[in-house]
Amino acid sequence: MAEAIINLNADMGESFGAWSMGADEQLLDVVCTANVACGMHAGDPMVMRRTLAAARARGVEVGAHPGYPDLAGFGRRDLGMHPKEIEACVAYQIGALTALAACEGCTLAHVKPHGAMYNRAWTDAPAARAIAAAIASVDSRLILLAPAFSELSKAGHEFGLSVVDEVFADRAYRDDGRLVSRSEPDAVLHDTARVLEHLDSMLSGEVVARGGTRLAVTAGSVCLHGDNEAALTLAQEVRRRLELRGYRMVSLREFAAHSREDHDSAQH
Amino acid sequence: MAEAIINLNADMGESFGAWSMGADEQLLDVVCTANVACGMHAGDPMVMRRTLAAARARGVEVGAHPGYPDLAGFGRRDLGMHPKEIEACVAYQIGALTALAACEGCTLAHVKPHGAMYNRAWTDAPAARAIAAAIASVDSRLILLAPAFSELSKAGHEFGLSVVDEVFADRAYRDDGRLVSRSEPDAVLHDTARVLEHLDSMLSGEVVARGGTRLAVTAGSVCLHGDNEAALTLAQEVRRRLELRGYRMVSLREFAAHSREDHDSAQH
Amino acid sequence: MAEAIINLNADMGESFGAWSMGADEQLLDVVCTANVACGMHAGDPMVMRRTLAAARARGVEVGAHPGYPDLAGFGRRDLGMHPKEIEACVAYQIGALTALAACEGCTLAHVKPHGAMYNRAWTDAPAARAIAAAIASVDSRLILLAPAFSELSKAGHEFGLSVVDEVFADRAYRDDGRLVSRSEPDAVLHDTARVLEHLDSMLSGEVVARGGTRLAVTAGSVCLHGDNEAALTLAQEVRRRLELRGYRMVSLREFAAHSREDHDSAQH
Amino acid sequence: MAEAIINLNADMGESFGAWSMGADEQLLDVVCTANVACGMHAGDPMVMRRTLAAARARGVEVGAHPGYPDLAGFGRRDLGMHPKEIEACVAYQIGALTALAACEGCTLAHVKPHGAMYNRAWTDAPAARAIAAAIASVDSRLILLAPAFSELSKAGHEFGLSVVDEVFADRAYRDDGRLVSRSEPDAVLHDTARVLEHLDSMLSGEVVARGGTRLAVTAGSVCLHGDNEAALTLAQEVRRRLELRGYRMVSLREFAAHSREDHDSAQH
Repeated sequence: MAEAIINLNADMGESFGAWSMGADEQLLDVVCTANVACGMHAGDPMVMRRTLAAARARGVEVGAHPGYPDLAGFGRRDLGMHPKEIEACVAYQIGALTALAACEGCTLAHVKPHGAMYNRAWTDAPAARAIAAAIASVDSRLILLAPAFSELSKAGHEFGLSVVDEVFADRAYRDDGRLVSRSEPDAVLHDTARVLEHLDSMLSGEVVARGGTRLAVTAGSVCLHGDNEAALTLAQEVRRRLELRGYRMVSLREFAAHSREDHDSAQH
Repeated sequence: MAEAIINLNADMGESFGAWSMGADEQLLDVVCTANVACGMHAGDPMVMRRTLAAARARGVEVGAHPGYPDLAGFGRRDLGMHPKEIEACVAYQIGALTALAACEGCTLAHVKPHGAMYNRAWTDAPAARAIAAAIASVDSRLILLAPAFSELSKAGHEFGLSVVDEVFADRAYRDDGRLVSRSEPDAVLHDTARVLEHLDSMLSGEVVARGGTRLAVTAGSVCLHGDNEAALTLAQEVRRRLELRGYRMVSLREFAAHSREDHDSAQH
Repeated sequence: MAEAIINLNADMGESFGAWSMGADEQLLDVVCTANVACGMHAGDPMVMRRTLAAARARGVEVGAHPGYPDLAGFGRRDLGMHPKEIEACVAYQIGALTALAACEGCTLAHVKPHGAMYNRAWTDAPAARAIAAAIASVDSRLILLAPAFSELSKAGHEFGLSVVDEVFADRAYRDDGRLVSRSEPDAVLHDTARVLEHLDSMLSGEVVARGGTRLAVTAGSVCLHGDNEAALTLAQEVRRRLELRGYRMVSLREFAAHSREDHDSAQH
Repeated sequence: MAEAIINLNADMGESFGAWSMGADEQLLDVVCTANVACGMHAGDPMVMRRTLAAARARGVEVGAHPGYPDLAGFGRRDLGMHPKEIEACVAYQIGALTALAACEGCTLAHVKPHGAMYNRAWTDAPAARAIAAAIASVDSRLILLAPAFSELSKAGHEFGLSVVDEVFADRAYRDDGRLVSRSEPDAVLHDTARVLEHLDSMLSGEVVARGGTRLAVTAGSVCLHGDNEAALTLAQEVRRRLELRGYRMVSLREFAAHSREDHDSAQH
């Protein structure tokens, strides 16, 4: 890849009824790709529609952000669901968002699971395969946005999906490629300089884990947040820094297309 | 139309979690078309999937049965939703069921709204148009199954959808084509002989309303129920009677295709 | 009544799970009485408990703010519930909050219904009686906080409850004592000076309705809001103004006790 | 205790909205005590009220059957809730049912948690203490109906509650006093003769665990079910058998009073 490209993604549309959440409007100026909540952990049909419309108006790519059916827990609790239930829940939510996207004249690019489902699929192969199976059944052109080093990423490849691996600029990694739990000290990097250093390393192809291990990674996307002022400021900083370093911000569709070309040319 | 054809439809998949409802298995032997609940008034992703699989196994056509987001009220309460909210809710549910149908290797033939949404769309033109707009946006090949004499039927035609009008064999009609309210005496016909007589008249092209008015109708489908023993027995009786009278039971897709042919040949 | 007393109340505890709402902390410095959401339109057991604890810590009186079971609609949609259902819903919510108050070592002073239930009970006598009946059954010492000029206020008296009538400082009244609908111009007073003038008049014993009619009123409480900066600033202004005019801010319990004394002395 | 007494309890009121569950009417003829669902895993305010009224009409004692807030999972999924959340949920539900009982002119005798919450409190001491704390805060006269050999039973004693231990006539026990998991063979006894033999042994003061260990037990109540025909028939058989053996069926209140007397006389 001669030119350096990267995708920036963030979760959006997590308001519900009378309750607002997130600084979606400002985040839309930072990211290339919006993961839109689909009504089970957050979002409702009107919120989904408004989010799709807002993303479309800014030229931001959209995809499904399915979570567990648990509004009270915001999809952050593991419900111990059977993989078959996960598969059905994920398909349900992709379909729902696809239909609302049709109403707004746009199409979905990708799927990225939310919260406790995302965490479970990081290491639980049957759950990961259930998610990949749902995507493959509903629309096999959808890109799977998965954590680097995860069972979910593997499962996506198994099911023949385009997979883009994402990394977290503000989170420390364990030597096995998982995130250090938030309950541990130093799990989250608060210092912008350290975040950017961490990111630089990851974009060079290596995650430096907490224990010192260097894990090879091909980061396609960086996950950003807008829950609070600090997160939004960091997101803006990350983008600025990447631009300064010469990265071109691209959609997941473009990133996946490049990867396929690289892959194809490497085979010839 | 040389040959007499008719469609029989019933609502299904209205269980939820640990709660069962309806005699879906037996109804599947009676009807040609199943209206499958989509998770907002009843049904959940697993129930939806099981219902689609069971219908497919019996060769019964499936479609979406979207309702208001109101599990506690089973979609029977009017929530006073804005037409834009109705449109988003309907699109959401069609999409969700479409995705689960893809998982089961089948496709949806139609949409028929449920309960209070169905009733509102009978006479409320903006609500009716919201439903038709949602269908047209999501998949304009979906057939709209609407009550005869309704704003919903009109709205379907306005939006260029294939519309099949349905009638109720066990319900008395008012002179304006609406159903006599259940709160009035004689709203529901309990006597099988009278139900069949009522149906005979409707299939001959005329609804005899309670006040004596004769309303011209082209009934494409008869709505049946399986909530209790009596309803199921009546459904079976209706089917037997129609077969005896020489009717061929067809899917909505076949009925709609016939109607289009008739319409086309009438124009030439 | 030699000394001028008045109560200020506001709705609180309307967050839900991961979603926050309202400036409860700041409002607690302004009001004497908090109407705490009970989990059906907003609030969840943890939010309820935190709200009760925060109110207790500031010496603010608490009561139940029951609404329709409709999180998606925030209790603002009329669900067309039967009075018997309303009665059961209200009793359920009062009981739930009473129990959490017991966990926090405090007791409820009053009940004030929320949103669409409040509006319905303003003019719908059977609904109003259902609410009063629920309160009387659960704990007849609970004060009913009801809109002045309403069926709900009447129903409270009918069921032998202590009733305190509340007025809205920033809303125009119709000649029949109802609020001018928000859909009409001039329904809401935005100018602080006008709000305070309106309030002065009401506290002198007269609501000047939009059409010029003067309606006699004994306002016991003023309803304030904290949904946004402007509302909170107005709330603070209203309190300051009332203090300048010599009013003493009292709890509903104290106001109701005074009213009973006045009533008793008037009878002797 | 000269006279042999025993309590029979069953879960009830687990319908929700349009969905029915359980043979409550028939079970009310078998049991002395009904555990009434409180709206979080099943039940709604109207179902709760009807269940309380039906129990009262038959002279059956009532109590709260609080579960996790999870209608979709019927309270059978562990939500990983913090003990503080469990405490708030349990208090909320006890309060809600208490209020509806007041509307029906009756009072609650006891509390027995449902499903996954019951299972967790069997072995998880902090969760067990959270439940006991909630009961003690809301009304310390409420009896705790807990599984024999459980942390919940212990926690009840710790918090000064009257505790009645219940046993399962149709379930095999492990040597540590827990139930054999349903996923294992022989977890559930289907043969009536074996069920009655198992019960005889338990009422004589010993649970014979699957491994042969004999665990001393003072069974105060037997948990029965009415989910299906077989369960109901077994429940009726169990009652008949106990009556034949000379047992008098008593309420939890009476059982707890006897236990206190025994305890008191043993101390003098």
